[in-house]
Amino acid sequence: MMSRTEIQEAGRRIAGHVRRTPVLSLEEVLCLEEDASDLLARVTLKLEWLQQTGSFKARGAFNFMLSSTVPEAGVIAASGGNHGAAVAYAARKLGHRAEIFVPATSPANKVERLRDYGAIVNQIGDTYAEALAASQERAASSGALAIHAYDDPRVLAGQGTLGMEFEEQAPDLDSVLVAVGGGGLIAGVAAWSQGRIKVIGVEPEKAPTLFRALEAGGPVDVEVGGVAADSLGARRVGSLVFPIAAKYVNRVALVTDDQIRQAQKFLWRRLRVVAEPGGAAALAALLSGAYQPRTDERVGVVLCGANAELSSIPV
Amino acid sequence: MMSRTEIQEAGRRIAGHVRRTPVLSLEEVLCLEEDASDLLARVTLKLEWLQQTGSFKARGAFNFMLSSTVPEAGVIAASGGNHGAAVAYAARKLGHRAEIFVPATSPANKVERLRDYGAIVNQIGDTYAEALAASQERAASSGALAIHAYDDPRVLAGQGTLGMEFEEQAPDLDSVLVAVGGGGLIAGVAAWSQGRIKVIGVEPEKAPTLFRALEAGGPVDVEVGGVAADSLGARRVGSLVFPIAAKYVNRVALVTDDQIRQAQKFLWRRLRVVAEPGGAAALAALLSGAYQPRTDERVGVVLCGANAELSSIPV
Repeated sequence: MMSRTEIQEAGRRIAGHVRRTPVLSLEEVLCLEEDASDLLARVTLKLEWLQQTGSFKARGAFNFMLSSTVPEAGVIAASGGNHGAAVAYAARKLGHRAEIFVPATSPANKVERLRDYGAIVNQIGDTYAEALAASQERAASSGALAIHAYDDPRVLAGQGTLGMEFEEQAPDLDSVLVAVGGGGLIAGVAAWSQGRIKVIGVEPEKAPTLFRALEAGGPVDVEVGGVAADSLGARRVGSLVFPIAAKYVNRVALVTDDQIRQAQKFLWRRLRVVAEPGGAAALAALLSGAYQPRTDERVGVVLCGANAELSSIPV
Repeated sequence: MMSRTEIQEAGRRIAGHVRRTPVLSLEEVLCLEEDASDLLARVTLKLEWLQQTGSFKARGAFNFMLSSTVPEAGVIAASGGNHGAAVAYAARKLGHRAEIFVPATSPANKVERLRDYGAIVNQIGDTYAEALAASQERAASSGALAIHAYDDPRVLAGQGTLGMEFEEQAPDLDSVLVAVGGGGLIAGVAAWSQGRIKVIGVEPEKAPTLFRALEAGGPVDVEVGGVAADSLGARRVGSLVFPIAAKYVNRVALVTDDQIRQAQKFLWRRLRVVAEPGGAAALAALLSGAYQPRTDERVGVVLCGANAELSSIPV
């Protein structure tokens, strides 16, 4: 299992390559209605969408490459978008070749960004799983180093630096809400926390990957869909992720697509923050009551990605 | 002239009512081209658009009301939008009646927000000056307390808290870039700095209000227009603003509308930040070379407002 030392080492390794993203404490009442006066919680937002490439994935990508020997053939990744962008960006910054496999369902802006970062982009299949299979074949034939989006200790340790950094910035949190796709971010955060604060996973009802795995006692395949599928639509939680989550994740809250879109709307209207559906999911759990904190609970919420088309934001 | 003590007092007065907005240090190269490698400057952004109501104006509005005796008739403001929103919001939070006068040219989203905050909104005239005149007549007849958008010491001291806070967060800055409309923000920041760091004003070429005043040796009326007119289109710099700016503002850089829109595009594409034209103007001066820092100069840039329609953001 991931140690805190591994995460500290990752933090030293990627410092200067990734941003220390700021936090914002909302001292005022947090509630959906402008006029409501109930105190839901003391909320501190981790503005991780300000990270390089617009999501936390840059942390794992840099830590992977900086702790590996990358061959001439470079790196390969399969990704719904954010992991691919992070791998492409980190590869360019570190002087490696990058080839990225994405499902045909990936949004146009994400594919365009990959090409802007100089990566070769292959759009294959309808699902992440199909793109992943194609990327693995290619890695086997070219000798390039495949970087899994979440099921790799170097990637998990990189994502774990978010948990370490958030604790430094907001040391008095009681709990932290983290959106779950394949589970890389929550596993990293939980491995850092090791039960010292509550770690709450948040998944779309239509992509309950970790929820079902915890029910089943191990990773199982689930059907995935919904508005956040392009970033949270991993069909199976990582095998390295599962034991960490089973030990240190307190529970998984499920949110509807409508609740996710309400959270996107809230973020724009109240904070002038643009979040992609997956980036707004954690906040949706709080706003919708899917996660109900105690009165005065100090809740951290990770806003983990903003790679949306502006025209897709509900206003 | 405004003392640092007045700004410190304002800071204590408004604490808990406004947000301490975060800063973001860009450790990487800042340049318009993704592939360019020239270091322009070490840049720290003040994310003031995360402030209550989406701009710095909440600081001045709260400081005004908290240091005044507000009558039953409440408060009145004339504003292209952000000042009005701040006054409406602060009035509601503090239990006062608010009546806001805006030019008919104000964007629909800003007017809607004023009404959401419970204010009575009067749309009168084509310019800020006409709305201001109507608001003054109304204040005289109703007995409500008029809150000027920038030419009031309580408002200036409130805006000055941004300079104080930015210095606490980034104590090693050499310079700070601040967009100028009527001059309330830059006067507050300059009054805090008192020459200890360079304070650079940034104005649209089409609204060079402080630029012309400094040329003329005193406030003069200027023609205003362009993409940022709704937030930076004050026709005349404040009479309290001028002497502070004349003493402590190093220079005013002028930017074109196209440079402002390029900066909006940069903020969205590279940082996933939405800025209104006036909120992006300060960064435009850096990106366009209208302000050229020394190599390794530590430059602070205030991103001061985000009250734009999403559909208006250049992508």
